[in-house]
Amino acid sequence: MNTATVLDVFKGRVPTESEVTVQGWIRTRRDSKAGISFLTIYDGSCFDALQAVANNTLLNYHDEVLRLTAGCSVSISGQLINSIGKNQNYEIQVKTIKVLGWVEDPNSYPIAPKRHSLEHLRDVAHLRPRTNLIGAVTRIRHTLAQSIHRFMNEKGFFWVSTPLITASNSEGTGDMFRVSTLDLKTPPQTPDGKCDFHQDFFGKETFLTVSGQLNAESYACALSKVYTFGPIFRAENSNTSRHLAEFWMVEVEFAFANLTDIIDLSKSMLKYLFQSVLTECEKEMQFLSQTIDKQAIKRLERFINTDLIQIDYSEAIQLLKNCDQKFELSPLWGGDLSGEHERYLSEVCFKAPVVIKNYPKDLKAFYMRINEDGKTVAAMDILAPGIGEIIGGSQREERLDYLDKRLEEKGLNQEDYWWYRDLRRYGTVSHSGFGLGLERLIIYVTGMKNVRDVIPFPRSPRTVNF
Amino acid sequence: MNTATVLDVFKGRVPTESEVTVQGWIRTRRDSKAGISFLTIYDGSCFDALQAVANNTLLNYHDEVLRLTAGCSVSISGQLINSIGKNQNYEIQVKTIKVLGWVEDPNSYPIAPKRHSLEHLRDVAHLRPRTNLIGAVTRIRHTLAQSIHRFMNEKGFFWVSTPLITASNSEGTGDMFRVSTLDLKTPPQTPDGKCDFHQDFFGKETFLTVSGQLNAESYACALSKVYTFGPIFRAENSNTSRHLAEFWMVEVEFAFANLTDIIDLSKSMLKYLFQSVLTECEKEMQFLSQTIDKQAIKRLERFINTDLIQIDYSEAIQLLKNCDQKFELSPLWGGDLSGEHERYLSEVCFKAPVVIKNYPKDLKAFYMRINEDGKTVAAMDILAPGIGEIIGGSQREERLDYLDKRLEEKGLNQEDYWWYRDLRRYGTVSHSGFGLGLERLIIYVTGMKNVRDVIPFPRSPRTVNF
Repeated sequence: MNTATVLDVFKGRVPTESEVTVQGWIRTRRDSKAGISFLTIYDGSCFDALQAVANNTLLNYHDEVLRLTAGCSVSISGQLINSIGKNQNYEIQVKTIKVLGWVEDPNSYPIAPKRHSLEHLRDVAHLRPRTNLIGAVTRIRHTLAQSIHRFMNEKGFFWVSTPLITASNSEGTGDMFRVSTLDLKTPPQTPDGKCDFHQDFFGKETFLTVSGQLNAESYACALSKVYTFGPIFRAENSNTSRHLAEFWMVEVEFAFANLTDIIDLSKSMLKYLFQSVLTECEKEMQFLSQTIDKQAIKRLERFINTDLIQIDYSEAIQLLKNCDQKFELSPLWGGDLSGEHERYLSEVCFKAPVVIKNYPKDLKAFYMRINEDGKTVAAMDILAPGIGEIIGGSQREERLDYLDKRLEEKGLNQEDYWWYRDLRRYGTVSHSGFGLGLERLIIYVTGMKNVRDVIPFPRSPRTVNF
Repeated sequence: MNTATVLDVFKGRVPTESEVTVQGWIRTRRDSKAGISFLTIYDGSCFDALQAVANNTLLNYHDEVLRLTAGCSVSISGQLINSIGKNQNYEIQVKTIKVLGWVEDPNSYPIAPKRHSLEHLRDVAHLRPRTNLIGAVTRIRHTLAQSIHRFMNEKGFFWVSTPLITASNSEGTGDMFRVSTLDLKTPPQTPDGKCDFHQDFFGKETFLTVSGQLNAESYACALSKVYTFGPIFRAENSNTSRHLAEFWMVEVEFAFANLTDIIDLSKSMLKYLFQSVLTECEKEMQFLSQTIDKQAIKRLERFINTDLIQIDYSEAIQLLKNCDQKFELSPLWGGDLSGEHERYLSEVCFKAPVVIKNYPKDLKAFYMRINEDGKTVAAMDILAPGIGEIIGGSQREERLDYLDKRLEEKGLNQEDYWWYRDLRRYGTVSHSGFGLGLERLIIYVTGMKNVRDVIPFPRSPRTVNF
């Protein structure tokens, strides 16, 4: 007897008329008056469920089959036949059905077959991948991750893992989680009344990293093309639909590359990823287009088929100044683009993702390369309608004297960056990189509205369940 | 002018006789009396460096070319020709050479071209990927990671990301890092004098996870086949060549699978990974065989071509009892296999990786499935010569009553595992899984001796540099 997944069946890998065993969970059961039950079984291998037709001649038909409810696990054996039903290419004529696991009290089963709110599903995050929606999102997340690795590998980038636990606050951003093994009831103190981190596990104060970029740069200055793909942490106390305390990020570092090179690379990467999803997650995208966001498929197709709009920060400010819309915060050269500004540019002005380049240096981190004008840096953000920044990157400052000046301007210590400075002292090369937040990318792809629904077990302020 | 990587050149992607630009770093320079300099340039894209022949007719020959030292970055343009030298298929006849970055004080350059100790290289972990050795290890690490994702995807497993920050101590192991944003100088206290974690970021005490398994199980009970690939933490105060505080792990969960299925899957995965390394990292493996471990290539070939030895824990104890060797700790049924026992089995007795199965239940975690004998659990460890446990897995207890009994035996609270128990209450299925430590795998593949040398920036007690 051939055991097959539902995907195997739908891909035509199982010959029709042959005997097959499929294991999975009941999605629906419908009983006809003629004594036949129509079961649909899913196993998560693909979006669709497989129909199994069970006759009342089965030995356990009355005792078991008629008691099956959504979520029961079963092993079904029978003959695979071409289905005459609509939307079904195949079905199984059941010879035996073995119940592997019942659903305890089906009426209180948290994901009984009805429409559930996303908030409710978050409360049962351990069961929500059993729903059509979260199952689809999970397979898309997988496809995006696979495609990222594949694209990077094909382009000659090596995956490097940068450390999560760090003693440095790389970008000078606050909001980091402390990592410690000290007893919090009575933490050891130094003679001058501070916490004595010398007694901590690492012998100094340590945090969860907010970026692997600086470490990745050191590998790009040896292997030319590298990327990271791992978790990143922000202890920001903001409960929004776009922020998580723990999320996944891709960070690319590319030696001998300038700002234009990484804009081109970002663009071709995004096109590659979106094409992979359209090809490999066709059913999932159809479902999302029907239930979550009508534009989901069209948005990706449009991205693939059009060039990215690129404008300078200075042009963006002009556009905002000259437009009809009133903003809470008046657009001003030198000021950050606020959420409303970004939304206007990508959602109203261009109605498409847009690359903003060459920001004022005071708005950006110390490591970004000063342009010839002395006022702006070679930075770029890709803003997408509905989500905001999806990619942020820059050319890195490879000239030691400029870098040192920037460190000083930002009030950062040269000594803390001794090894980063070494990269400029020993065979420095121009290099550039960008970061891509995985969850925001999934939001863009799926049309989902909240990052909490596109990562298996979200972490945010006061939320750390499962 | 065509810009190419060194790999492009060696792969024959650049036509000979054509003009090409290569950017990279100087590995060596040798000057002939006839006024010709032979430079080798690497860019990290592959193991080999490319030879460039610079004539003293170059305008910057005397001022710059003759001052080039290892680590200087250059952009070299010229004609690609077939080399007449040994071990070189191609070389560049230099037309122009542009120095991009000098090495400040070449005599003190931390990785000047001589043999360095691995300990010294750890002190300059930001520069060590520039060495042949660490460059090779990095590309092998990349190839293993890529191959893991590819293998899993081909076998129908979905990548899921399990949370790093957790409020639970999943396996009842100690030694976890605390994650907190509380002020460590004066942490808030509850009325009864304990630390008031209610005021912490997540509203409760949180840690860095030691395993994503339980979370992964919840996804396997929906999508059937899943795997994680991410960092894992242990706050163990052990400074050995086999332990890191932060390391990368693959955890596989496989529904409708038993112990035999995951032993088979582990085996085919390891064979697939080793074959990928032999095929894609040929030069790297040759270099390692010459400099680090003569057996490096042979060990992988042997693994690919032989079946894995499998024995029961009880048989292992008998073998240890009956052998000639004296052990510090006498082998005894019910006792843990110590390091010396494991070494004897894999290094002396079988001289090969060996699978030990069906351990006494008291030695293993609560979630492992009780065998029919009531005394052992369906667990397995794969032990490899020279490294010890490389894979550990088990069939998971899918029967709620057995699971509850095990929780009780281990002194764990049912309430803490409410959601894990739900997986057994709602359509439970037999399922199995295993974990594979990436760094130990790399040790096995490369013959390197210390895990600190196979991860870019190692973290261990009192070590958190870069």
